[in-house]
Amino acid sequence: MNPLQQRILEQGVVKSAAALDASAFLTKQVDAVLLNWCANAIAEQFRDANIDKVVTIEAGGIAIGTLTALALNKPLVVCKKAASILDNAELYTAEVKSFTKNTQYTLTCDKRHITAGEKVLFVDDFLAHGQALLGMKSVCEQAGAELAGLGIVIEKSFQEGRGIAEQLALPILSLARLKSLEHGIEFH
Amino acid sequence: MNPLQQRILEQGVVKSAAALDASAFLTKQVDAVLLNWCANAIAEQFRDANIDKVVTIEAGGIAIGTLTALALNKPLVVCKKAASILDNAELYTAEVKSFTKNTQYTLTCDKRHITAGEKVLFVDDFLAHGQALLGMKSVCEQAGAELAGLGIVIEKSFQEGRGIAEQLALPILSLARLKSLEHGIEFH
Repeated sequence: MNPLQQRILEQGVVKSAAALDASAFLTKQVDAVLLNWCANAIAEQFRDANIDKVVTIEAGGIAIGTLTALALNKPLVVCKKAASILDNAELYTAEVKSFTKNTQYTLTCDKRHITAGEKVLFVDDFLAHGQALLGMKSVCEQAGAELAGLGIVIEKSFQEGRGIAEQLALPILSLARLKSLEHGIEFH
Repeated sequence: MNPLQQRILEQGVVKSAAALDASAFLTKQVDAVLLNWCANAIAEQFRDANIDKVVTIEAGGIAIGTLTALALNKPLVVCKKAASILDNAELYTAEVKSFTKNTQYTLTCDKRHITAGEKVLFVDDFLAHGQALLGMKSVCEQAGAELAGLGIVIEKSFQEGRGIAEQLALPILSLARLKSLEHGIEFH
């Protein structure tokens, strides 16, 4: 049992068979020391993969993304869920459906921040249905960059995201893999 | 000239007399090493202030907030700009007008994450018109917590935020203070 799994057992709240509330330590309140442990584990895993950029999606991915970027000494690119009103930059875009929130959003990435030939590590707080991953894959393809890895804090292995990552033959590190929430919290 | 000021001169783009685009290193792309320098400077300033929690507002404040929380070894509380659809938690709320984006939003904070008697350090990427600061002051008052300090990456000193912080007698550290953008970038 690693420190993250331990914390999930202590402070995670099962909201339904599909939803874990990790707001006490991961989202609404961030335990920066615990998350830094996660970031260092992800950085260690991808240390020799010649990553050029860490990328994530606002807002949930920014904390783990920042700490992973710091550990790898690389920039963090933050993809937005809509273009800013101030933004007249050229953008890569991809439509992403959020099953968890039952919404759809446009993932946007400034074209100056991911460029052809770069190797990109996508880091996020949750892996669930894999739709954000597909959006990020599309952004990388549009840029001519290589999506070279996936670092995840909490993976809900019973949803489609893991399978999608494997179909993409993407190296992946998930620090906690939830096997099921049907009868309380079960890890792989 | 500190490393942040130097970077602002190199990569900041003056969009108007009121707006600086720092997206190349602070918002859409985050230089985690530079931001960690900022976070450590803020943490150093408030090291002896007995801070219990670092608080910030999504999404712009999360990177600097996470690194400051790590440096102080305290939790980061992330206030949202609207309640999540998944959220049935009890919330403190405050209405905040964004002059920069010409919008209004409801600042929300889970009542479990700021509690009576706590000393709170508010950290954010920009200080402009001070409306987010007033919202955070209100949230702290509702919680019976003490807003004990303000740590800012870039302060637009020619707008009202600085004056509001001083009226509140709030200890403040801004790592770059923009005196004017009228004739290019001028620092205090």
